[in-house]
Amino acid sequence: MTGADSLIQTALAAGVEVCFANPGTTEMPLVAALDRAPRMRAVLGLFEGVCTGAADGYARMAGRPALALLHLGPGLANGLANLHNARRAAVPVLVVVGDHASWHLAADPPLAADIVSLANPVSGWVRPVRRAADVAADTAAALEAACAPPGRVATLIVPADCQWEPAPGAPVAVRVSAPAAVSGDRIDAAARALRALGAGGALLVGGAALGVRGLRAAARVRAACGARVLHDTFVTRLERGAGLPDLERVPYFPEQAVAALVGLRALVLCGAREPVAFFGYPGGRSVLAPDSCERIALAAPEEDAVGALEALADALGAPAAPPAESPRARPALPSGALDGAKLGQILAALQPEGAIVVDEGLTSSAPWFTASAAAPEHTVLALTGGAIGQGLPCAAGAALACPGRKVIALQADGSGMYTLQALWTMAREGLDVVVVVCANRSYRILQIELARAGIAEPGPAARALADLSHPELDWTALARGLGVPATRAADADAFAKELARALADPGPTLIEALL
Amino acid sequence: MTGADSLIQTALAAGVEVCFANPGTTEMPLVAALDRAPRMRAVLGLFEGVCTGAADGYARMAGRPALALLHLGPGLANGLANLHNARRAAVPVLVVVGDHASWHLAADPPLAADIVSLANPVSGWVRPVRRAADVAADTAAALEAACAPPGRVATLIVPADCQWEPAPGAPVAVRVSAPAAVSGDRIDAAARALRALGAGGALLVGGAALGVRGLRAAARVRAACGARVLHDTFVTRLERGAGLPDLERVPYFPEQAVAALVGLRALVLCGAREPVAFFGYPGGRSVLAPDSCERIALAAPEEDAVGALEALADALGAPAAPPAESPRARPALPSGALDGAKLGQILAALQPEGAIVVDEGLTSSAPWFTASAAAPEHTVLALTGGAIGQGLPCAAGAALACPGRKVIALQADGSGMYTLQALWTMAREGLDVVVVVCANRSYRILQIELARAGIAEPGPAARALADLSHPELDWTALARGLGVPATRAADADAFAKELARALADPGPTLIEALL
Repeated sequence: MTGADSLIQTALAAGVEVCFANPGTTEMPLVAALDRAPRMRAVLGLFEGVCTGAADGYARMAGRPALALLHLGPGLANGLANLHNARRAAVPVLVVVGDHASWHLAADPPLAADIVSLANPVSGWVRPVRRAADVAADTAAALEAACAPPGRVATLIVPADCQWEPAPGAPVAVRVSAPAAVSGDRIDAAARALRALGAGGALLVGGAALGVRGLRAAARVRAACGARVLHDTFVTRLERGAGLPDLERVPYFPEQAVAALVGLRALVLCGAREPVAFFGYPGGRSVLAPDSCERIALAAPEEDAVGALEALADALGAPAAPPAESPRARPALPSGALDGAKLGQILAALQPEGAIVVDEGLTSSAPWFTASAAAPEHTVLALTGGAIGQGLPCAAGAALACPGRKVIALQADGSGMYTLQALWTMAREGLDVVVVVCANRSYRILQIELARAGIAEPGPAARALADLSHPELDWTALARGLGVPATRAADADAFAKELARALADPGPTLIEALL
Repeated sequence: MTGADSLIQTALAAGVEVCFANPGTTEMPLVAALDRAPRMRAVLGLFEGVCTGAADGYARMAGRPALALLHLGPGLANGLANLHNARRAAVPVLVVVGDHASWHLAADPPLAADIVSLANPVSGWVRPVRRAADVAADTAAALEAACAPPGRVATLIVPADCQWEPAPGAPVAVRVSAPAAVSGDRIDAAARALRALGAGGALLVGGAALGVRGLRAAARVRAACGARVLHDTFVTRLERGAGLPDLERVPYFPEQAVAALVGLRALVLCGAREPVAFFGYPGGRSVLAPDSCERIALAAPEEDAVGALEALADALGAPAAPPAESPRARPALPSGALDGAKLGQILAALQPEGAIVVDEGLTSSAPWFTASAAAPEHTVLALTGGAIGQGLPCAAGAALACPGRKVIALQADGSGMYTLQALWTMAREGLDVVVVVCANRSYRILQIELARAGIAEPGPAARALADLSHPELDWTALARGLGVPATRAADADAFAKELARALADPGPTLIEALL
């Protein structure tokens, strides 16, 4: 058994079953070890951002880490943006970066780089392996760090000689801790504040508490005391749809968020952080809730927010079951010219029970989010870290984690271009993904931001830097070039027809919706 | 004038005329400043690796820096791999990274990250701007660092408020130093060693000394004393072709390189570092020249290697002009099935005078390199840092720097997939680039490395991780999707015909050569 074998065997014993990989020469012993471990599914990405984004999506849906196997500093660098998103999602990811043989680093060969410096900004845990005999224990330590609630990116740097040299045989066991329970004092403090305030109080719910159990507990709290229940603009994973309690989403633009929170007197944080503006603007502010609003920390992200919400509902004397949700009508199918509103209505009207919707539609997907409250139960995965190019890889990873569920990637065109290589992985692995490209042929958000910055008449440079129409991207050609069948929809009727067909067939497939 | 204006005006005054950009909300004041500075050409890349690779290619050909404008930590992260290549190329690049408004960072908004930690591994100089009034001076300091010989990546981090706030008007002047002259003692020491050794001595030439003046001086040295003259496997920029002295290339695989250098008794380093193995292998070594070989440092990369070579030739009593190169015959056009050897012969047979060949063909381009010694004078740009995905962006940047010259991107398919978005920039800017995709539908180098690692019969995981044939990439569809006309060549005759046509027409165009 080599160091590489001890890594793969330790990961397998801890329940890691998928390896999203783009290896190189320094990872050849790990590739050989994968061949000796057929239970580990090796999935090739043609760019490292695909591997890391897929590991994020996989973790969100499987609730356990995948392995992302990357090649040296530059391979890690290519995967960093989606690791940034995974860090903000607080999901477990095991990143394994091969490095030069330890004795070769002093020669400063061309591919050498400071991997620790690259890894630190996205990782909650980083360790370079020192010798082959340590690989299994270091892998176990990485997995314990990755899986400690709520989850984090753990990066293990493994020199090639530590991979190819002999190592002890047995995998090292991984102990995963449960989230810590919240004390009765904090439950009582939150109950006291909310009971007194009615709609002047609010819960901000995040993390695992956006699952069905947490949502039902939050709805019981709402029913018992009248508090508002909110979630962040960009969620790691949110269960949603008709029959489930619907929460308020904190708006994206800060002035809208401030308006939504005005008058709030207490904000109870349950698995969520204080809501802050995505960007700072001249004369603007960072914090969105009123300064006068009391902050009450019910459960930190690493604590048991679901249990805390249930205890809070009990303390408020809420009935054991949440109130029945009133029936919601799915939107009718609109007709005529296609725009973001109609696209959202059509998707909400047609999306099947149990769909996983990966939302990187940005400016195009807001109408869908509103309309889909009435859709059958589904799961939403959003762009937690703001680093675009997350949607398509995340969809691939979610599909691998949930083979029985339809994945819908609601994808902005500009962002989709960052990691379009994910389409090839969808094709190769036969993943059941419907990609809807919202083709407005612009960085629309930048056009909005230019207007917000008071630039009413952008000049040629500003216009050009937000424009994707010259030349026009042909997403159907791009998809076919990567092995994914694709169609184009130029109006609402065509989009509804193509979407219905795509949802009925096994994927992957891509629809370019011209907006 | 805002801080953003002072940055753009300082860069313009220093001769920076191109900005490869993918800005976001935190760079809007810089975008507005670009609109007020029409002499700065703003070029959009649909992924940051395109911007940074283009800045590298531009610097190699223009001899001065471009500006790469990136969005926060994740935007920089996406550009790091090609900045790593630029670092190894030792070319000047000015990287400007927008950051959150300084007062907003404490809120740790979703896109916040440790930008300095990300920048350090690829940068020779990093500075976060503290206030708007400092932007011009900090920009000048960055440019002085970038342009100090031999050139480096300088990263300036500019918070949004430092961009939008008022700043002093005048651009700050940039003082660029010339490379330091080499002392007569070192010239004499090198001359003494080489005079005594004949072919037992060698020059390893790098950096600016691989231009026409340096090559001619090296040929004079060779003629005077019989020393061998070598260059690194992967060059920043090499002038080459019939009429120019042809140097020996250090082979890629270490055992071949060791064999090529066996028996060497003195190695004179002129603008080059000690040659080392690209990777370390079990039982292998880092250093390629014999341990017994004397190392003689004639000119460090930051010193005047061209002047040192000329002085060395004079010291050796060489004639003032190098010996005339004997005529070399371009290869004939082969026929029949296409392989890497024939592809290289055809390209060498047809490439025009003054072509710039960006060589990321990897395993497919070695035959071209051999055959093209007989081609008309041309320039070679190679993958200096080993971080794949450099070829297409570098070709775009080189074409922007040299509008009158034909650029040929000799591109491996697996590597090309990393930054295929560069094709769109070629189309948008009307760049005269012929892209030749060497479509062997595999990571061929990994198949070779598996065999070298003794894995004669790779299992399914190892085979899959080096295989790009399922599904097959269709590069003609990908190119068309990005606005670049494309054809496919399945045999040598078709490739010669398509290449001749592509070279005759203005670009961009892409030929998928099936190997």
